[in-house]
Amino acid sequence: MIYSESLQELIKEFKKMPGIGEKNAQRLAFYVLQISNEQAQKLSMAIINLKTRIRYCSICSNLTEVDPCAICHNPSRDHSLICVVEDPKALIAIEKTGQYKGVYHVLMGTLSPLDNIGPDDIRIKELMTRVEKNDVKEVIMGTSPNMEGETTSLYIARLLSPLGIKITRLARGVPIGTDIEYADEITLLNALEGRTKF
Amino acid sequence: MIYSESLQELIKEFKKMPGIGEKNAQRLAFYVLQISNEQAQKLSMAIINLKTRIRYCSICSNLTEVDPCAICHNPSRDHSLICVVEDPKALIAIEKTGQYKGVYHVLMGTLSPLDNIGPDDIRIKELMTRVEKNDVKEVIMGTSPNMEGETTSLYIARLLSPLGIKITRLARGVPIGTDIEYADEITLLNALEGRTKF
Repeated sequence: MIYSESLQELIKEFKKMPGIGEKNAQRLAFYVLQISNEQAQKLSMAIINLKTRIRYCSICSNLTEVDPCAICHNPSRDHSLICVVEDPKALIAIEKTGQYKGVYHVLMGTLSPLDNIGPDDIRIKELMTRVEKNDVKEVIMGTSPNMEGETTSLYIARLLSPLGIKITRLARGVPIGTDIEYADEITLLNALEGRTKF
Repeated sequence: MIYSESLQELIKEFKKMPGIGEKNAQRLAFYVLQISNEQAQKLSMAIINLKTRIRYCSICSNLTEVDPCAICHNPSRDHSLICVVEDPKALIAIEKTGQYKGVYHVLMGTLSPLDNIGPDDIRIKELMTRVEKNDVKEVIMGTSPNMEGETTSLYIARLLSPLGIKITRLARGVPIGTDIEYADEITLLNALEGRTKF
Protein backbone atom coordinates (compact mmCIF):
# COMPACT_ATOMS: atom_id res chain seq x y z
CA MET A 1 0.00 0.00 0.00
CA ILE A 2 1.40 3.38 -1.02
CA TYR A 3 -0.62 5.54 1.35
CA SER A 4 -0.78 4.83 5.04
CA GLU A 5 -4.11 3.36 6.10
CA SER A 6 -5.82 6.43 7.51
CA LEU A 7 -4.72 8.57 4.57
CA GLN A 8 -6.05 5.96 2.17
CA GLU A 9 -9.31 5.88 4.08
CA LEU A 10 -9.87 9.64 3.92
CA ILE A 11 -8.95 9.77 0.23
CA LYS A 12 -11.54 7.03 -0.37
CA GLU A 13 -14.21 9.02 1.46
CA PHE A 14 -13.38 12.26 -0.38
CA LYS A 15 -13.49 10.44 -3.71
CA LYS A 16 -17.14 9.61 -3.13
CA MET A 17 -17.98 13.32 -3.23
CA PRO A 18 -19.38 14.80 -6.45
CA GLY A 19 -16.70 16.15 -8.79
CA ILE A 20 -13.80 14.94 -6.65
CA GLY A 21 -11.39 12.62 -8.44
CA GLU A 22 -8.25 10.81 -7.27
CA LYS A 23 -5.86 13.79 -7.45
CA ASN A 24 -8.35 16.15 -5.88
CA ALA A 25 -9.15 13.71 -3.08
CA GLN A 26 -5.44 13.38 -2.40
CA ARG A 27 -5.03 17.14 -2.32
CA LEU A 28 -7.93 17.52 0.12
CA ALA A 29 -6.55 14.76 2.35
CA PHE A 30 -3.18 16.50 2.45
CA TYR A 31 -4.99 19.71 3.29
CA VAL A 32 -6.53 17.93 6.29
CA LEU A 33 -3.07 16.69 7.25
CA GLN A 34 -1.61 20.16 7.40
CA ILE A 35 -4.41 21.97 9.23
CA SER A 36 -4.44 22.12 13.03
CA ASN A 37 -6.15 19.42 15.07
CA GLU A 38 -8.64 22.03 16.17
CA GLN A 39 -9.46 22.89 12.57
CA ALA A 40 -9.89 19.22 11.68
CA GLN A 41 -12.17 18.79 14.65
CA LYS A 42 -14.27 21.70 13.42
CA LEU A 43 -14.57 20.19 9.96
CA SER A 44 -15.44 16.79 11.35
CA MET A 45 -18.02 18.20 13.76
CA ALA A 46 -19.59 20.36 11.05
CA ILE A 47 -20.31 17.19 9.09
CA ILE A 48 -21.88 15.44 12.05
CA ASN A 49 -23.79 18.53 13.17
CA LEU A 50 -25.28 18.97 9.73
CA LYS A 51 -26.56 15.40 9.78
CA THR A 52 -27.96 15.52 13.30
CA ARG A 53 -29.39 19.02 13.47
CA ILE A 54 -30.96 19.58 10.11
CA ARG A 55 -34.51 18.58 9.29
CA TYR A 56 -37.23 19.60 6.86
CA CYS A 57 -39.64 22.39 7.70
CA SER A 58 -43.09 20.89 8.31
CA ILE A 59 -44.71 23.70 6.33
CA CYS A 60 -42.53 24.28 3.27
CA SER A 61 -39.94 21.43 3.45
CA ASN A 62 -37.04 23.84 3.45
CA LEU A 63 -33.92 22.66 5.29
CA THR A 64 -33.96 24.00 8.81
CA GLU A 65 -32.81 23.48 12.35
CA VAL A 66 -36.00 24.87 13.87
CA ASP A 67 -39.49 23.93 12.80
CA PRO A 68 -41.13 25.88 11.20
CA CYS A 69 -38.18 27.32 9.31
CA ALA A 70 -37.02 30.92 9.59
CA ILE A 71 -38.87 31.89 6.39
CA CYS A 72 -42.23 30.30 7.32
CA HIS A 73 -41.85 31.74 10.81
CA ASN A 74 -41.10 35.27 9.64
CA PRO A 75 -44.15 37.58 10.03
CA SER A 76 -42.68 40.15 7.67
CA ARG A 77 -42.71 37.71 4.75
CA ASP A 78 -45.79 37.70 2.53
CA HIS A 79 -47.50 34.42 3.38
CA SER A 80 -50.10 34.90 0.66
CA LEU A 81 -47.37 34.51 -1.97
CA ILE A 82 -45.88 31.03 -2.39
CA CYS A 83 -43.02 30.17 -4.70
CA VAL A 84 -42.95 26.50 -5.64
CA VAL A 85 -39.44 25.08 -6.08
CA GLU A 86 -38.02 21.64 -6.72
CA ASP A 87 -35.51 21.42 -3.91
CA PRO A 88 -33.81 23.44 -1.16
CA LYS A 89 -30.96 24.40 -3.53
CA ALA A 90 -33.40 26.21 -5.80
CA LEU A 91 -34.88 27.93 -2.75
CA ILE A 92 -31.42 29.15 -1.74
CA ALA A 93 -30.72 30.42 -5.25
CA ILE A 94 -33.92 32.52 -5.17
CA GLU A 95 -33.30 33.68 -1.57
CA LYS A 96 -29.90 34.96 -2.70
CA THR A 97 -31.57 37.59 -4.90
CA GLY A 98 -32.58 39.20 -1.59
CA GLN A 99 -35.74 40.60 -3.23
CA TYR A 100 -38.30 37.86 -2.84
CA LYS A 101 -40.59 38.55 0.11
CA GLY A 102 -43.02 35.66 -0.17
CA VAL A 103 -42.69 32.14 1.21
CA TYR A 104 -41.80 28.85 -0.47
CA HIS A 105 -43.04 25.38 -1.08
CA VAL A 106 -40.35 22.79 -1.74
CA LEU A 107 -41.65 19.90 -3.84
CA MET A 108 -38.67 17.64 -3.09
CA GLY A 109 -38.52 16.51 -6.70
CA THR A 110 -40.24 16.83 -10.04
CA LEU A 111 -42.72 14.66 -11.91
CA SER A 112 -40.75 12.18 -13.96
CA PRO A 113 -42.70 9.24 -15.39
CA LEU A 114 -39.50 7.66 -16.71
CA ASP A 115 -38.10 7.47 -13.19
CA ASN A 116 -41.47 6.37 -11.82
CA ILE A 117 -41.96 9.63 -9.92
CA GLY A 118 -45.66 10.52 -9.92
CA PRO A 119 -47.75 13.23 -8.23
CA ASP A 120 -47.90 11.26 -4.97
CA ASP A 121 -44.12 11.07 -4.72
CA ILE A 122 -43.56 14.81 -4.45
CA ARG A 123 -45.21 17.32 -2.12
CA ILE A 124 -48.11 18.39 -4.35
CA LYS A 125 -50.87 17.29 -1.96
CA GLU A 126 -49.26 19.38 0.79
CA LEU A 127 -49.21 22.39 -1.53
CA MET A 128 -52.90 22.00 -2.33
CA THR A 129 -53.79 21.77 1.37
CA ARG A 130 -51.68 24.84 2.10
CA VAL A 131 -53.33 26.87 -0.65
CA GLU A 132 -56.83 25.72 0.31
CA LYS A 133 -56.47 26.31 4.03
CA ASN A 134 -54.62 29.61 3.94
CA ASP A 135 -55.31 32.95 2.36
CA VAL A 136 -52.97 32.42 -0.60
CA LYS A 137 -53.27 34.98 -3.39
CA GLU A 138 -50.53 33.94 -5.78
CA VAL A 139 -48.45 30.86 -6.51
CA ILE A 140 -45.22 31.36 -8.49
CA MET A 141 -43.93 28.34 -10.35
CA GLY A 142 -40.21 28.32 -9.66
CA THR A 143 -39.38 24.93 -11.13
CA SER A 144 -36.40 24.54 -13.46
CA PRO A 145 -37.11 25.37 -17.13
CA ASN A 146 -36.48 21.83 -18.36
CA MET A 147 -38.83 19.02 -19.27
CA GLU A 148 -39.48 17.67 -15.78
CA GLY A 149 -39.82 21.15 -14.30
CA GLU A 150 -42.24 22.31 -17.01
CA THR A 151 -44.33 19.15 -16.72
CA THR A 152 -44.52 19.58 -12.97
CA SER A 153 -45.51 23.26 -13.23
CA LEU A 154 -48.17 22.49 -15.80
CA TYR A 155 -49.60 19.71 -13.66
CA ILE A 156 -49.73 21.87 -10.55
CA ALA A 157 -51.13 24.87 -12.43
CA ARG A 158 -54.00 22.73 -13.66
CA LEU A 159 -54.75 21.52 -10.15
CA LEU A 160 -54.67 25.08 -8.79
CA SER A 161 -56.65 26.83 -11.50
CA PRO A 162 -60.14 25.91 -10.10
CA LEU A 163 -59.19 27.71 -6.87
CA GLY A 164 -59.20 31.02 -8.67
CA ILE A 165 -55.85 32.27 -7.39
CA LYS A 166 -53.20 33.95 -9.49
CA ILE A 167 -50.70 31.46 -10.91
CA THR A 168 -47.48 32.82 -12.39
CA ARG A 169 -44.16 31.47 -13.44
CA LEU A 170 -40.63 32.85 -13.47
CA ALA A 171 -39.92 34.98 -16.56
CA ARG A 172 -38.01 33.21 -19.27
CA GLY A 173 -34.92 35.10 -18.34
CA VAL A 174 -33.73 31.83 -16.89
CA PRO A 175 -31.67 30.06 -19.56
CA ILE A 176 -33.57 27.02 -20.84
CA GLY A 177 -32.20 23.52 -20.27
CA THR A 178 -30.09 24.31 -17.25
CA ASP A 179 -30.64 23.74 -13.57
CA ILE A 180 -32.12 26.65 -11.62
CA GLU A 181 -29.56 26.29 -8.87
CA TYR A 182 -26.79 27.49 -11.20
CA ALA A 183 -28.52 30.63 -12.44
CA ASP A 184 -26.87 33.86 -11.34
CA GLU A 185 -28.63 36.23 -8.97
CA ILE A 186 -29.35 38.98 -11.56
CA THR A 187 -30.93 36.54 -13.99
CA LEU A 188 -33.05 35.14 -11.19
CA LEU A 189 -34.02 38.61 -10.04
CA ASN A 190 -35.11 39.58 -13.56
CA ALA A 191 -37.00 36.34 -13.83
CA LEU A 192 -38.81 37.08 -10.56
CA GLU A 193 -39.76 40.61 -11.59
CA GLY A 194 -40.89 39.68 -15.10
CA ARG A 195 -43.01 36.72 -14.02
CA THR A 196 -45.97 36.07 -16.33
CA LYS A 197 -49.45 34.65 -15.81
CA PHE A 198 -49.47 30.85 -16.09
CA MET B 1 -29.28 34.07 6.88
CA ILE B 2 -30.08 32.08 3.76
CA TYR B 3 -28.62 28.76 4.85
CA SER B 4 -29.50 27.18 8.15
CA GLU B 5 -26.70 27.45 10.67
CA SER B 6 -25.17 23.99 10.42
CA LEU B 7 -25.31 24.05 6.63
CA GLN B 8 -23.62 27.45 6.63
CA GLU B 9 -20.96 26.12 8.99
CA LEU B 10 -20.10 23.11 6.84
CA ILE B 11 -20.01 25.23 3.66
CA LYS B 12 -17.60 27.58 5.45
CA GLU B 13 -15.34 24.66 6.41
CA PHE B 14 -15.39 23.18 2.91
CA LYS B 15 -14.57 26.56 1.39
CA LYS B 16 -11.28 26.60 3.28
CA MET B 17 -10.14 23.59 1.26
CA PRO B 18 -7.85 24.14 -1.71
CA GLY B 19 -9.67 24.62 -5.01
CA ILE B 20 -13.13 24.60 -3.39
CA GLY B 21 -15.19 27.74 -4.07
CA GLU B 22 -18.66 28.77 -2.93
CA LYS B 23 -20.67 26.68 -5.40
CA ASN B 24 -18.47 23.63 -4.90
CA ALA B 25 -18.63 23.92 -1.12
CA GLN B 26 -22.42 24.12 -1.37
CA ARG B 27 -22.52 21.06 -3.59
CA LEU B 28 -20.32 19.10 -1.18
CA ALA B 29 -22.45 20.15 1.79
CA PHE B 30 -25.58 18.98 0.00
CA TYR B 31 -23.79 15.74 -0.76
CA VAL B 32 -23.24 15.31 2.99
CA LEU B 33 -26.93 16.06 3.57
CA GLN B 34 -28.09 13.29 1.28
CA ILE B 35 -25.72 10.51 2.36
CA SER B 36 -26.66 8.19 5.22
CA ASN B 37 -25.77 9.05 8.81
CA GLU B 38 -23.42 6.08 8.79
CA GLN B 39 -21.65 7.40 5.71
CA ALA B 40 -21.30 10.86 7.26
CA GLN B 41 -19.92 9.27 10.40
CA LYS B 42 -17.32 7.45 8.30
CA LEU B 43 -16.26 10.65 6.58
CA SER B 44 -16.08 12.53 9.85
CA MET B 45 -14.10 9.77 11.57
CA ALA B 46 -11.70 9.46 8.63
CA ILE B 47 -10.77 13.11 9.15
CA ILE B 48 -10.16 12.68 12.87
CA ASN B 49 -8.35 9.36 12.43
CA LEU B 50 -5.99 10.89 9.92
CA LYS B 51 -5.08 13.65 12.35
CA THR B 52 -4.65 11.40 15.39
CA ARG B 53 -2.99 8.36 13.84
CA ILE B 54 -0.55 9.75 11.35
CA ARG B 55 2.98 10.80 12.22
CA TYR B 56 6.30 11.18 10.44
CA CYS B 57 8.70 8.26 10.13
CA SER B 58 11.72 8.89 12.39
CA ILE B 59 14.06 7.65 9.66
CA CYS B 60 12.79 9.12 6.39
CA SER B 61 9.98 11.50 7.48
CA ASN B 62 7.42 9.74 5.33
CA LEU B 63 3.84 9.84 6.61
CA THR B 64 3.10 6.69 8.56
CA GLU B 65 1.03 5.15 11.30
CA VAL B 66 3.86 2.92 12.53
CA ASP B 67 7.41 4.06 13.15
CA PRO B 68 9.58 3.29 11.22
CA CYS B 69 7.36 3.44 8.15
CA ALA B 70 6.54 0.44 5.98
CA ILE B 71 9.23 1.38 3.45
CA CYS B 72 12.05 1.89 5.97
CA HIS B 73 10.95 -1.27 7.74
CA ASN B 74 10.87 -3.42 4.61
CA PRO B 75 13.94 -5.72 4.38
CA SER B 76 13.36 -6.35 0.67
CA ARG B 77 13.91 -2.66 -0.17
CA ASP B 78 17.43 -1.58 -1.08
CA HIS B 79 18.54 0.46 1.91
CA SER B 80 21.79 1.48 0.22
CA LEU B 81 19.77 3.51 -2.31
CA ILE B 82 18.12 6.68 -1.02
CA CYS B 83 15.86 8.93 -3.07
CA VAL B 84 15.67 12.46 -1.69
CA VAL B 85 12.26 14.10 -2.14
CA GLU B 86 10.71 17.37 -1.03
CA ASP B 87 7.59 16.08 0.63
CA PRO B 88 5.44 12.99 1.15
CA LYS B 89 3.39 13.78 -1.96
CA ALA B 90 6.50 13.45 -4.15
CA LEU B 91 7.31 10.17 -2.39
CA ILE B 92 3.84 8.86 -3.20
CA ALA B 93 4.20 9.90 -6.85
CA ILE B 94 7.44 7.92 -7.15
CA GLU B 95 6.05 4.94 -5.22
CA LYS B 96 3.20 4.78 -7.71
CA THR B 97 5.60 3.79 -10.51
CA GLY B 98 5.90 0.52 -8.58
CA GLN B 99 9.49 0.11 -9.84
CA TYR B 100 11.60 1.93 -7.29
CA LYS B 101 13.11 -0.50 -4.81
CA GLY B 102 15.24 1.84 -2.72
CA VAL B 103 14.23 3.92 0.29
CA TYR B 104 13.48 7.63 0.65
CA HIS B 105 14.50 10.71 2.51
CA VAL B 106 11.82 13.38 2.78
CA LEU B 107 13.32 16.87 3.16
CA MET B 108 10.05 18.48 4.25
CA GLY B 109 10.70 21.49 2.07
CA THR B 110 13.25 23.05 -0.26
CA LEU B 111 15.86 25.72 0.18
CA SER B 112 14.26 29.06 -0.50
CA PRO B 113 16.23 32.14 0.59
CA LEU B 114 13.32 34.42 -0.38
CA ASP B 115 11.09 32.63 2.11
CA ASN B 116 13.86 32.48 4.68
CA ILE B 117 14.17 28.70 4.42
CA GLY B 118 17.80 27.70 4.85
CA PRO B 119 19.66 24.37 5.18
CA ASP B 120 18.79 24.08 8.87
CA ASP B 121 15.07 24.37 8.19
CA ILE B 122 14.81 21.20 6.11
CA ARG B 123 16.07 17.70 6.91
CA ILE B 124 19.52 17.92 5.33
CA LYS B 125 21.46 17.24 8.53
CA GLU B 126 19.43 14.06 9.06
CA LEU B 127 20.26 12.97 5.51
CA MET B 128 23.98 13.49 6.08
CA THR B 129 23.86 11.46 9.31
CA ARG B 130 21.95 8.69 7.54
CA VAL B 131 24.43 8.53 4.69
CA GLU B 132 27.44 8.64 7.00
CA LYS B 133 26.20 6.04 9.47
CA ASN B 134 24.76 3.54 7.01
CA ASP B 135 26.15 1.72 4.04
CA VAL B 136 24.61 4.01 1.42
CA LYS B 137 25.86 3.52 -2.13
CA GLU B 138 23.71 5.96 -4.09
CA VAL B 139 21.59 9.03 -3.45
CA ILE B 140 19.04 9.99 -6.10
CA MET B 141 17.99 13.63 -6.14
CA GLY B 142 14.23 13.50 -6.57
CA THR B 143 13.45 17.16 -5.98
CA SER B 144 11.13 19.03 -8.34
CA PRO B 145 12.82 20.44 -11.48
CA ASN B 146 12.19 24.06 -10.56
CA MET B 147 14.39 26.72 -9.06
CA GLU B 148 14.04 25.75 -5.41
CA GLY B 149 14.32 22.03 -6.16
CA GLU B 150 17.44 22.49 -8.29
CA THR B 151 19.09 24.74 -5.70
CA THR B 152 18.35 22.21 -2.99
CA SER B 153 19.74 19.31 -5.05
CA LEU B 154 22.87 21.23 -5.91
CA TYR B 155 23.43 22.15 -2.28
CA ILE B 156 22.98 18.57 -1.06
CA ALA B 157 25.10 17.13 -3.88
CA ARG B 158 27.98 19.38 -2.85
CA LEU B 159 27.69 18.28 0.77
CA LEU B 160 27.59 14.62 -0.25
CA SER B 161 30.38 14.62 -2.83
CA PRO B 162 33.27 14.31 -0.30
CA LEU B 163 31.73 11.06 0.91
CA GLY B 164 32.53 9.39 -2.39
CA ILE B 165 29.09 7.89 -2.99
CA LYS B 166 27.23 7.92 -6.27
CA ILE B 167 24.95 10.94 -6.61
CA THR B 168 22.36 10.93 -9.37
CA ARG B 169 19.27 12.86 -10.28
CA LEU B 170 16.03 12.00 -12.03
CA ALA B 171 16.32 12.12 -15.82
CA ARG B 172 14.97 15.25 -17.41
CA GLY B 173 11.95 13.37 -18.58
CA VAL B 174 10.13 15.28 -15.90
CA PRO B 175 8.62 18.41 -17.48
CA ILE B 176 10.49 21.51 -16.24
CA GLY B 177 8.72 24.12 -14.15
CA THR B 178 5.99 21.89 -12.79
CA ASP B 179 5.55 20.18 -9.48
CA ILE B 180 6.76 16.59 -9.24
CA GLU B 181 3.57 15.42 -7.59
CA TYR B 182 1.59 16.04 -10.79
CA ALA B 183 3.88 14.10 -13.14
CA ASP B 184 2.31 10.95 -14.57
CA GLU B 185 3.63 7.53 -13.67
CA ILE B 186 5.24 6.75 -17.04
CA THR B 187 7.16 10.03 -17.09
CA LEU B 188 8.34 9.38 -13.56
CA LEU B 189 9.31 5.82 -14.45
CA ASN B 190 11.35 7.01 -17.44
CA ALA B 191 12.93 9.65 -15.28
CA LEU B 192 13.92 7.03 -12.70
CA GLU B 193 15.42 4.71 -15.31
CA GLY B 194 17.33 7.42 -17.17
CA ARG B 195 18.78 9.05 -14.08
CA THR B 196 22.17 10.73 -14.69
CA LYS B 197 25.24 11.34 -12.55
CA PHE B 198 24.98 14.59 -10.58
